[in-house]
Amino acid sequence: MTDINAIEKALYSYLPSDAVYEKKLTESMKYSLEAGGKRIRPTLTLAFASLLGADEEVAMPFACAVEMIHTYSLIHDDLPCMDDDDMRRGKPSNHKVFGEDIALLAGDALQSLAFEIMTLDSTAEKAGYETCCKCVNILSRYCGAVGMVGGQVIDLAFENKKASLEIISEMDRKKTGGLIKAACLMGCAVGNASSEEFLAAEKYAENIGLAFQIVDDILDVTSTEQELGKPIGSDADNNKSNYVTELGIEECQRLADKLTCEALEALNVFSGDTSFLASLAQKLARRKN
Amino acid sequence: MTDINAIEKALYSYLPSDAVYEKKLTESMKYSLEAGGKRIRPTLTLAFASLLGADEEVAMPFACAVEMIHTYSLIHDDLPCMDDDDMRRGKPSNHKVFGEDIALLAGDALQSLAFEIMTLDSTAEKAGYETCCKCVNILSRYCGAVGMVGGQVIDLAFENKKASLEIISEMDRKKTGGLIKAACLMGCAVGNASSEEFLAAEKYAENIGLAFQIVDDILDVTSTEQELGKPIGSDADNNKSNYVTELGIEECQRLADKLTCEALEALNVFSGDTSFLASLAQKLARRKN
Repeated sequence: MTDINAIEKALYSYLPSDAVYEKKLTESMKYSLEAGGKRIRPTLTLAFASLLGADEEVAMPFACAVEMIHTYSLIHDDLPCMDDDDMRRGKPSNHKVFGEDIALLAGDALQSLAFEIMTLDSTAEKAGYETCCKCVNILSRYCGAVGMVGGQVIDLAFENKKASLEIISEMDRKKTGGLIKAACLMGCAVGNASSEEFLAAEKYAENIGLAFQIVDDILDVTSTEQELGKPIGSDADNNKSNYVTELGIEECQRLADKLTCEALEALNVFSGDTSFLASLAQKLARRKN
Repeated sequence: MTDINAIEKALYSYLPSDAVYEKKLTESMKYSLEAGGKRIRPTLTLAFASLLGADEEVAMPFACAVEMIHTYSLIHDDLPCMDDDDMRRGKPSNHKVFGEDIALLAGDALQSLAFEIMTLDSTAEKAGYETCCKCVNILSRYCGAVGMVGGQVIDLAFENKKASLEIISEMDRKKTGGLIKAACLMGCAVGNASSEEFLAAEKYAENIGLAFQIVDDILDVTSTEQELGKPIGSDADNNKSNYVTELGIEECQRLADKLTCEALEALNVFSGDTSFLASLAQKLARRKN
């Protein structure tokens, strides 16, 4: 199930057709959308919708929307005034190819596009206005000031400054966890989940989100630049506190495994087949890139 | 009608409460939202909704949303990698106060917040899911790659390069006209306008939008820095083509007046009292800042 090719086909289908004078913008949006990645967030949306019996084509616009928000955040994160990263997923980052101005605007336009595709007539006809509305609300909340962007601000505030585990976890919960949670909850909204199921999905999302970030911190020390497609050791170089600097690699792997177990437990609420979501959680906790 | 104080009160009420570590983000969002301006776009949303008999409280979240998008665009436009403006509305621009990183993120979070407030339960309870959905779609489309952001890209493409009147009008139609059109159309959506009324509102918006930009170009030459609250003569300094550089001031004022007349004509379709929208169009065409 949840074929990455199907996600990518849908994702690219939403890109605006090349305008005469704005060709560079569309190319820049396309460049980062097509740069690959694991497509974890859209996969989660589709998986929860499917678990609850909803059709993939109903859930697809919401799956694509969360990937667009994720992509915009990567473009903006790489900008010189932010993390100033020249490489992303083994390719030059967006602003290195298109310039800072276009990269900034491509990010802005990808954010708008995410909300546009969730409210197209073609989306609403299948999902209904109420679901579209709820998904817009979920995604906008978790990607904004109290979610992803808020986490990014905490990250900036503690650059070159020691952060406690409490702060690190608050940052990770928002920065990485925000969109993962939004992805799962949108799948639940599409599948008309009960409030118990919403809560269970939230718990699953929180646990795999934190585990995901901890594994990211581990890989930042143990992986190679080639495997990761981006420079390694960047947190240590920037004197940034993260789970590994605070707890060490072994304890971090134990913690990631524990969180994964709790994520699997949360799935017990659902009566459908949760094997895909269970194995996804396990794969993420043991991934190498 | 349409009291600016009521708009501003509602606008500020939507700001997230200060988080512990993200205080700077909230302050940065607030700084630019509170920097004033004419609040033309929210006024247009409320005016069209009122013309069609909808309550102000139903239309208010959508009015606030378009102002948030406008505010985010100003923050991003002022960044060094874009227009690099140090002043905005007589105050230091956002990044001069909060730094480029926070300014970038405040813009990003204001965009998300716009879509969040349009889909809150409190909004949907009054406006209904269908209207919320349609407004999200209108605003996201006209602020994105085929609207405001697209116009900004055309603007960048013709910096220091001669642009034809056709290109200038395409740029203005998208960059300034995009949000003005979205504001009017959202008011129509809230007021359950007929398709004839939607078309008339679109015509009104296109005409006042273009007139607004032409007057902006005039004021860039004829006004003072104190009156405008930002540096004057910036287009000439940057060798940028605009309506005034192509047609001259007198012809531009004539054109602005002609467009305003056409905007007034478009209002004839409505059976309600259009005097407020008519006088607003006239005031915008003859404004001094």
